[in-house]
Amino acid sequence: MTSPTRSVEIVRVAGAGRQTLGDRVAAEEPLAIRVDAEPYAVIMRTPGADRDLAAGFLFAERLIREPADVASIEHCADAAERENTVEVRLANPQAGLRARQRRREIASASSCGVCGRQSIDDLVVGLPAIVDDFAVSARIVAGLPARLRASQRAFDETGGLHAAGLFSSEGDLLDVAEDVGRHNAVDKVIGRALRRRQLPLARAVLCVSGRTSFEIVQKAAAAGIPLLAAVSAPTGLAIDLAERTGLTLIGFMRGDTFNVYAGARRVA
Amino acid sequence: MTSPTRSVEIVRVAGAGRQTLGDRVAAEEPLAIRVDAEPYAVIMRTPGADRDLAAGFLFAERLIREPADVASIEHCADAAERENTVEVRLANPQAGLRARQRRREIASASSCGVCGRQSIDDLVVGLPAIVDDFAVSARIVAGLPARLRASQRAFDETGGLHAAGLFSSEGDLLDVAEDVGRHNAVDKVIGRALRRRQLPLARAVLCVSGRTSFEIVQKAAAAGIPLLAAVSAPTGLAIDLAERTGLTLIGFMRGDTFNVYAGARRVA
Repeated sequence: MTSPTRSVEIVRVAGAGRQTLGDRVAAEEPLAIRVDAEPYAVIMRTPGADRDLAAGFLFAERLIREPADVASIEHCADAAERENTVEVRLANPQAGLRARQRRREIASASSCGVCGRQSIDDLVVGLPAIVDDFAVSARIVAGLPARLRASQRAFDETGGLHAAGLFSSEGDLLDVAEDVGRHNAVDKVIGRALRRRQLPLARAVLCVSGRTSFEIVQKAAAAGIPLLAAVSAPTGLAIDLAERTGLTLIGFMRGDTFNVYAGARRVA
Repeated sequence: MTSPTRSVEIVRVAGAGRQTLGDRVAAEEPLAIRVDAEPYAVIMRTPGADRDLAAGFLFAERLIREPADVASIEHCADAAERENTVEVRLANPQAGLRARQRRREIASASSCGVCGRQSIDDLVVGLPAIVDDFAVSARIVAGLPARLRASQRAFDETGGLHAAGLFSSEGDLLDVAEDVGRHNAVDKVIGRALRRRQLPLARAVLCVSGRTSFEIVQKAAAAGIPLLAAVSAPTGLAIDLAERTGLTLIGFMRGDTFNVYAGARRVA
């Protein structure tokens, strides 16, 4: 249950031939996140780094803002499915208030008339300032996808996992996480940094496999990350949010070529 | 606002060179779905086919089960953001009851002890039986990704959109939808089929770009689709659900080679 991959039996069809083989696929299981003994969310995720995932998810939700907000994060001893349940105890009364407020917002859902612009305005409030004196050479940026790929242990087995890697400005790998969900991989590395008291990640580059939606930019900006590089293309809203938060957004990385969608000054 | 793509200005870095260019990216905007004048959900999506998306999303949620459950689906005339709000009026009192029940479930979140097995048991209840006398030749299956790709108008411009295509057993394209979200592209084609009274799609193949999570299998099974082919790999839970519902699940499609993870009897 807690392995990120699983053995399966498949039929491989190649032209007119077919063969029964063993193979490995990415595991996907629901993780129930409880906050102060109340259900908060259920996330489909690849097992592993569950406590980091819970911390990163609640950080992106702005429910946890600093390590002192957390008293403990543990797998839930009484739950029927101990490995798929994490209990977060909040230390800070303010964080507890935010959790109750956020539950109410979820319960009442969003109002009619929500729009991209309003969402962006709401999202930008309370985000940390991103440092300006940070730059990475184009050569190092272009090399990140290959370095990320080389660090993916489970991908080699399954071909089915997204990755998020933190790198220094020199291109050294600082941390990496894999998950079937792109968002989860980002939550895992940021949540781990939070638990290690390394936030804000003011001098780190986040490189992600796949595309960039606005939520990936939101998570990076909340962690104070100055440069986000994605193998594939961003959405229009991701670009808007990168511009508003001052984050450098790179995508469409192919060999030594890539596109800078916002904040080109940080590419030296 | 309603275009699936948007113009942006980028800096393209190629080796030591850099150039400022116009480019197009996928649009991403929140769609608020209201049910009987109450907020139900907000989905990040690529604008276009919004009413199909709302129908498909509510069908996958098991809130709408047949066309007769829906009185109307329209963009919301009074909303501040008319283009980003869809109002669904339910015709059937049973469907209205399900909507209220489902809102309560969301409000109370899930209980501790949720697990993959329980979820699958819950999901399988009430799904239509999938026909057994349906087969597609391996040659036609192998050709689907190229046909899907050829049908993607917005991808060519942006490189950032997922696609879901419905095909006949002869490989003819019946319908296609694109979206930044994999799930949304599937909801759009299934929602459109629901609105056209074509469900269950008992003799159609669904081909999707990207990977297969359990939710994609759930949506296909709810629509009665017998064969789901994905360009990339499935998760373990996706395979479990395919086996339980009797759906044929194909992945890892490369040239004339692909893997069959469940239901190989439908590949002739």
